[in-house]
Amino acid sequence: MTTTANDAIRNGVDTATLFATLDAVKSAPEAARFQFRAANEWISGTHNRGTIHGYFGVGEERTHERVFQFDADHPAVLVGRDNGPTPVEYVLHALAACLTAGLANIAAARGVRLTSVTSTVVGDIDLNGILGLNPDVRNGYQNIAVRFTVKGDAPADVLRSIVEQSRNRSAVYDIITNGVPVTIDVATN
Amino acid sequence: MTTTANDAIRNGVDTATLFATLDAVKSAPEAARFQFRAANEWISGTHNRGTIHGYFGVGEERTHERVFQFDADHPAVLVGRDNGPTPVEYVLHALAACLTAGLANIAAARGVRLTSVTSTVVGDIDLNGILGLNPDVRNGYQNIAVRFTVKGDAPADVLRSIVEQSRNRSAVYDIITNGVPVTIDVATN
Repeated sequence: MTTTANDAIRNGVDTATLFATLDAVKSAPEAARFQFRAANEWISGTHNRGTIHGYFGVGEERTHERVFQFDADHPAVLVGRDNGPTPVEYVLHALAACLTAGLANIAAARGVRLTSVTSTVVGDIDLNGILGLNPDVRNGYQNIAVRFTVKGDAPADVLRSIVEQSRNRSAVYDIITNGVPVTIDVATN
Repeated sequence: MTTTANDAIRNGVDTATLFATLDAVKSAPEAARFQFRAANEWISGTHNRGTIHGYFGVGEERTHERVFQFDADHPAVLVGRDNGPTPVEYVLHALAACLTAGLANIAAARGVRLTSVTSTVVGDIDLNGILGLNPDVRNGYQNIAVRFTVKGDAPADVLRSIVEQSRNRSAVYDIITNGVPVTIDVATN
């Protein structure tokens, strides 16, 4: 069952605002230029803390409503103290979050009411790469597998097509599958 | 000034354990096969929550010492409620965290005592891609720039070479710059 077109809030998505935002960007494409940022401070060993607050978008400097901070570390088996997830686990979290957010928006735009969306993301990695023990092994994940369970008021093929469209429009899926150029500058003392 | 070779804890890194771990993996390379995991549950709109706890490594199922949970959302300007960072910001955090952890380990292994490591990571993204308004614009970041400030008891060229080696051995840098194949499966109802 799909909902009626005048159902303004669907899946917690304000569809009127969503469509208005699309129209606004259509008429002023430069509004869509964003810069996102993270800061990081080393604490000890593999333990460090990231801070996410400011960003640029829709023509001006902005801040999130609060400062977000996240610790990262290695577990003891990887010579850390387990004060936070490993950096590579944050990558899996980012992928699930991006696909899920897109899924909710796309379902809302298509008039589909979702009742439940859960997912697991697993990444296989051979640490002989980052340990420098085997030059034939890459540093990063060999592969990543996402498994969604999606429930809602629409047939299975419609729900699947919504996941497919979310993949087609996912920033993190694009970053992870296609790569992004990264520059690193270093200042000292 | 570099520290003496018998300085077992350096930069908070237990170098004896670090070298013992390297030796252990050298003699049993299959111990280095890890699988990391994240789960995610949709809450409402672009708001969802990731959970990181279990992983596989050194031949067995393991768990972090506690369950890590992180909310993701979009800010209001992107039709969300700002309950957490955006998924793409978590990617920047992961990159900074990975390079920083590597840097501390590599400095410790080389006998360099670090006093301070901070970084900022910025990613430029044109949302005309994910909004589906311009087929020539990619969904993900156009580019990512990392800026480190590294202080420690070593000359600038040594500190820079440690950052360079961390880049050479970074899992997240490899994932982001070279890409990883991702599969997506969907179960419904």
